[in-house]
Amino acid sequence: MSYDKKALALHKKHKGKIEIRSKIPLRSIDDLSTAYTPGVGAVAMAINKNASKSWDLTSRGNTIAIVSDGTAVLGLGNIGPAAAMPVMEGKSVIFKKFADINAIPLCIKADNSQEIVKFCKQIEPSFGGINLEDIAAPRCFDVLEKLEKELSIPVFHDDQDGTAIVILGALINACRVLGKVITELKIVISGAGAAGIATARLFLAQGIKNIILVDSKGIIYAGRSNLNIYKEKIAKKTNPRKLKGGLENALRGANVFIGVSKANIVARAMVESMDKKPVVFALANPIPEIMPGQALRAGAAIIGTGRSDYPNQINNALVFPGIFRGLLKSASKRVTVKMKIDSAIALAYTVKPTRNKILPKVTDKNAVKAVARAVAGNK
Amino acid sequence: MSYDKKALALHKKHKGKIEIRSKIPLRSIDDLSTAYTPGVGAVAMAINKNASKSWDLTSRGNTIAIVSDGTAVLGLGNIGPAAAMPVMEGKSVIFKKFADINAIPLCIKADNSQEIVKFCKQIEPSFGGINLEDIAAPRCFDVLEKLEKELSIPVFHDDQDGTAIVILGALINACRVLGKVITELKIVISGAGAAGIATARLFLAQGIKNIILVDSKGIIYAGRSNLNIYKEKIAKKTNPRKLKGGLENALRGANVFIGVSKANIVARAMVESMDKKPVVFALANPIPEIMPGQALRAGAAIIGTGRSDYPNQINNALVFPGIFRGLLKSASKRVTVKMKIDSAIALAYTVKPTRNKILPKVTDKNAVKAVARAVAGNK
Repeated sequence: MSYDKKALALHKKHKGKIEIRSKIPLRSIDDLSTAYTPGVGAVAMAINKNASKSWDLTSRGNTIAIVSDGTAVLGLGNIGPAAAMPVMEGKSVIFKKFADINAIPLCIKADNSQEIVKFCKQIEPSFGGINLEDIAAPRCFDVLEKLEKELSIPVFHDDQDGTAIVILGALINACRVLGKVITELKIVISGAGAAGIATARLFLAQGIKNIILVDSKGIIYAGRSNLNIYKEKIAKKTNPRKLKGGLENALRGANVFIGVSKANIVARAMVESMDKKPVVFALANPIPEIMPGQALRAGAAIIGTGRSDYPNQINNALVFPGIFRGLLKSASKRVTVKMKIDSAIALAYTVKPTRNKILPKVTDKNAVKAVARAVAGNK
Repeated sequence: MSYDKKALALHKKHKGKIEIRSKIPLRSIDDLSTAYTPGVGAVAMAINKNASKSWDLTSRGNTIAIVSDGTAVLGLGNIGPAAAMPVMEGKSVIFKKFADINAIPLCIKADNSQEIVKFCKQIEPSFGGINLEDIAAPRCFDVLEKLEKELSIPVFHDDQDGTAIVILGALINACRVLGKVITELKIVISGAGAAGIATARLFLAQGIKNIILVDSKGIIYAGRSNLNIYKEKIAKKTNPRKLKGGLENALRGANVFIGVSKANIVARAMVESMDKKPVVFALANPIPEIMPGQALRAGAAIIGTGRSDYPNQINNALVFPGIFRGLLKSASKRVTVKMKIDSAIALAYTVKPTRNKILPKVTDKNAVKAVARAVAGNK
């Protein structure tokens, strides 16, 4: 049976994937009077007097919100909040299983970034952190920037930094396998949405200089037309030789291709035009920018995709549970750049890398632990 | 140990009362591919094509939001959203235990009713219903009115209608015990906030005419100063003899006192001035308007309080789980007046009433079942 059919059957059978569980008994009037009125009044007043107590006396300290407006769901686009729900429930299940975090999916109607920001500010008292999810670029950049300034709980946009961190982790190990120095690489990133921009930013923070971003209109360079403010900003910090033209131009002589864009846009000849032993991470889902077999035949030394049916699955799920485990454990108020870089390094060093194993399996709990420690150690 | 101490210890030990549980297995890459990508994409698209599928394919059909701005929490007042959280978690535990409903507490920052309305409209795609909670009057009336018009999922403000329904149920049984006709009673309601106004409205819908509302400034009559628009409206429909003055005036010759106001405002002599065999529901919590012993010594035939340590506990918890069980089961889009009246009647008829047992115990699951049937039967 295909995954589509299996998934439809599973979701129909269980009517969704998550539920609430009570952590306390409620058998007698006495139990009720302790968990609810009148006893709960003392708990409420303790928090009213000292706000920090909400982390100990409610579930807040281990509960986050997954907030999405449904504008950029998986590779499906703007399918709306109700349709985004099964994806967010899936995320919630992963948070629970891999990091024992309670993640509440909140798929919301929002017409602009202001409405998402306002919403997240409203829910702050109920949660220990917010995982933004599947919000379209460039809206997502604006939302994250504002929330990082205005909230005192940590906010993480998985499609930006979750992707950036797992890619950096994979690239660190590709370098270990191939004996390359990461800061000397020429890297082409196809896609300048949430993942592409965030990955470029993290690479810059890691000291990588020769990064070329390519969007649907071609190579991004300072002064190009059709750039939103986020692309304009990153244009000034990347593409040091001011290359112009299409993806083909960008890839010539490059060491690394990172695709966070769309299916089948990389031809075999384009991989052949790259430098020796090129690394090809073709992460478009479900169909990558170039199929792994083709890339290998074109000379790719290491390939990676977003899929579980090829070697080297490069999947955010290796990152986001550990990020929030670490944030909550350390009661961090924000996600720093150093946390992200250290998470990528920690993730990479959970495995002895080989060409076909540059990352741990998604089901490997060591990934969560390593990332969580890296985050918490940087509070 | 006092309930305060027990409650603080319980909440500290468990760090809150609720958590997320996954309903599906997640052991293998195959499980992940079914619950999350790529399989979940087909589920998302099924909902995108047919919005009603979200009720079957996600947890939405059995999940509600408990929304509070923390402005009127229990008897504690405006203690803020973070401090309201333990109360809402308690409510969530009750929803789960008594009606197997997943209720997500969302305690939010909101400066006015518009912000609460906007918030609830935003979360509509994620939930099967909204339970408003502990929102101060008159803000709560405005919020409920607007949401009933603008949402296509049911909204219930427990402090209004939950209280009104359980009071009506209790009064129906008091009449059965005392052989009185409910529509002929002269009823005084002390308190014209959420509970008082909603109870008066439900009594009017039930055909009771001689209702006198009293607030902190005295008896409410048409044309009195210091009336908000909700009190103005109800003033025109109640107090047919246009009584003026204080609570003392109102109670003289009355058959029923319903207190949803504050501690110790009813003197023994005031009960003595009521008609024969008066009914005294003194529901202020934790200290009632008059202590049951005093009321009985002053001639009360039947007393009720909000407390579990006296006979006749009149508690919303008998109502709200069943209301939402019925709403979700029948996929109702709103709570109708007939649902409320039928719920009160159904609740009353779960017991063979006596003076000391006009309602079932809060832990009696028959209450939930009876109310749920009454609601679902009225879709």
